[in-house]
Amino acid sequence: MDVPARVRIVEVGPRDGLQNESGSISLDTKLALLDDLAEAGLKTLEAGSFVNPKWVPQMADSEQVFAQLQRREGVRYTALTPNIKGFERALEAGADEVAVFGAASESFSQKNINCSIAESLGKFEDVMAEARRHNIPVRGYVSCVLGCPYEGDITPEAVAEVTATLLDMGCYEVSLGDTIGTGTAGSTARLLETLLQKFRAEQLAVHCHDTYGQALANILIALQHGIATVDASVAGLGGCPYARGASGNVATEDVVYMLNGMGIATGIDLERLMTAGNRISAALGRATGSRTARALQAG
Amino acid sequence: MDVPARVRIVEVGPRDGLQNESGSISLDTKLALLDDLAEAGLKTLEAGSFVNPKWVPQMADSEQVFAQLQRREGVRYTALTPNIKGFERALEAGADEVAVFGAASESFSQKNINCSIAESLGKFEDVMAEARRHNIPVRGYVSCVLGCPYEGDITPEAVAEVTATLLDMGCYEVSLGDTIGTGTAGSTARLLETLLQKFRAEQLAVHCHDTYGQALANILIALQHGIATVDASVAGLGGCPYARGASGNVATEDVVYMLNGMGIATGIDLERLMTAGNRISAALGRATGSRTARALQAG
Repeated sequence: MDVPARVRIVEVGPRDGLQNESGSISLDTKLALLDDLAEAGLKTLEAGSFVNPKWVPQMADSEQVFAQLQRREGVRYTALTPNIKGFERALEAGADEVAVFGAASESFSQKNINCSIAESLGKFEDVMAEARRHNIPVRGYVSCVLGCPYEGDITPEAVAEVTATLLDMGCYEVSLGDTIGTGTAGSTARLLETLLQKFRAEQLAVHCHDTYGQALANILIALQHGIATVDASVAGLGGCPYARGASGNVATEDVVYMLNGMGIATGIDLERLMTAGNRISAALGRATGSRTARALQAG
Repeated sequence: MDVPARVRIVEVGPRDGLQNESGSISLDTKLALLDDLAEAGLKTLEAGSFVNPKWVPQMADSEQVFAQLQRREGVRYTALTPNIKGFERALEAGADEVAVFGAASESFSQKNINCSIAESLGKFEDVMAEARRHNIPVRGYVSCVLGCPYEGDITPEAVAEVTATLLDMGCYEVSLGDTIGTGTAGSTARLLETLLQKFRAEQLAVHCHDTYGQALANILIALQHGIATVDASVAGLGGCPYARGASGNVATEDVVYMLNGMGIATGIDLERLMTAGNRISAALGRATGSRTARALQAG
């Protein structure tokens, strides 16, 4: 089986995860989570989002998070920036990397941000220019790559188009998001086969949701296609797997368990990662969304 | 990706599943489940177990289950038979197929049935002889193929040895059980690479537990090795995935969803399968263990 010898995990729990958790989350809780994750060996931590706090109240304290987090050598603390104002705040706060985003589905783009995919990406041009000027790496996220709640199936060609635009704009990498988790090993393989005709595996990451239980199988397919960057959320933050309609971020612990079993290096200590996941789950008063953590707790 | 065009699902929910559920389950509930599953297109249903009811009270009514189930054309109703007495009861009840079992771990065999693997398999010789005489197919189960609660890792060679014995005794197929769910894509691949040097893919099935969230990834690896028979339990019966220490049978719905997405035929109607799973979950007063069913219910 031809898979990468080493995989980089992009930990999205502190942002994509916490953003979708209900209940208030204190600054100290966020700081402890970031510290626990760095302690576990994660090198890329999505730490906050510089959006209008009216829309995403869970991220209203991202300035304070960046100001107070204990920086560790070799760890990149990243932030989502939806516009130039957000970018300026991220820069001021000291984010090491920022992320911009677009959808692979026109309907999703229209219904969620009230403009076309092309228009939405056009709005990031000033962010890209400023990021270049300040030498800040920019990551691109594409949502709905394996299905859209409005349109259903999304063609690989549609994903290729928005991916090309993001890379052309200057993103160093594009993370392919299966936002509603409907993708399977079959559709993941078809998507990657199309994309890898146009892009190098090093330019792509996968961001799988476990809503239908398919995330690890889809990640396995991605590894078999040479993809070596995987987004994951500790404890499955961002979607309680017990709830109806859970968004279902794949749990970092489950990904690392699989990668360990495949002999793929991540630099992550699974025990410490579980400590991080169990601690944030306790702070949120919810059960962990990681099956691996649950199994090992019980053992 | 070279995978089988068609996969046979062996539905173990009504036996392996219900056996591990707490609470009393009425005969009518069992009969309705079997009927729902046949209606969904499943062709192999593990319907009961002829063991001492003192040890497995949930299966004490297997005679009545077999006597009263609505037989459907083309559906095979199978039973677990731990000894010749069980076999005679299964024969009398009209089981179409029986199953015998052994462990791949000496410690597991000793601690669970108080004899060595070889001794435990030797005790099935009379079952095999009687089955041959009555032209009843016998399936073999091997437990602990990817890990043992007492020994930890199990070598592929140990699994190969017990598999060979079961096939030599006359089993038409051996189902490889990852009893504690610790297997990964890596260990599954290594096991199958060893076994496929000695056996044909048609002689093997996989029986994956989702305790660590790895089941679908492991099944995917099995498919890529040509394995075309997969055990699964509707609604994940037999291990509530929310509970600590859940045994965690993989949910048939999640497997079928993946196979559908890969264009692999199963003959199963996913909608009807979910109806079966949701109905038995309601009867047991528990949430479904299938993420696919949960996602589609919510949608």
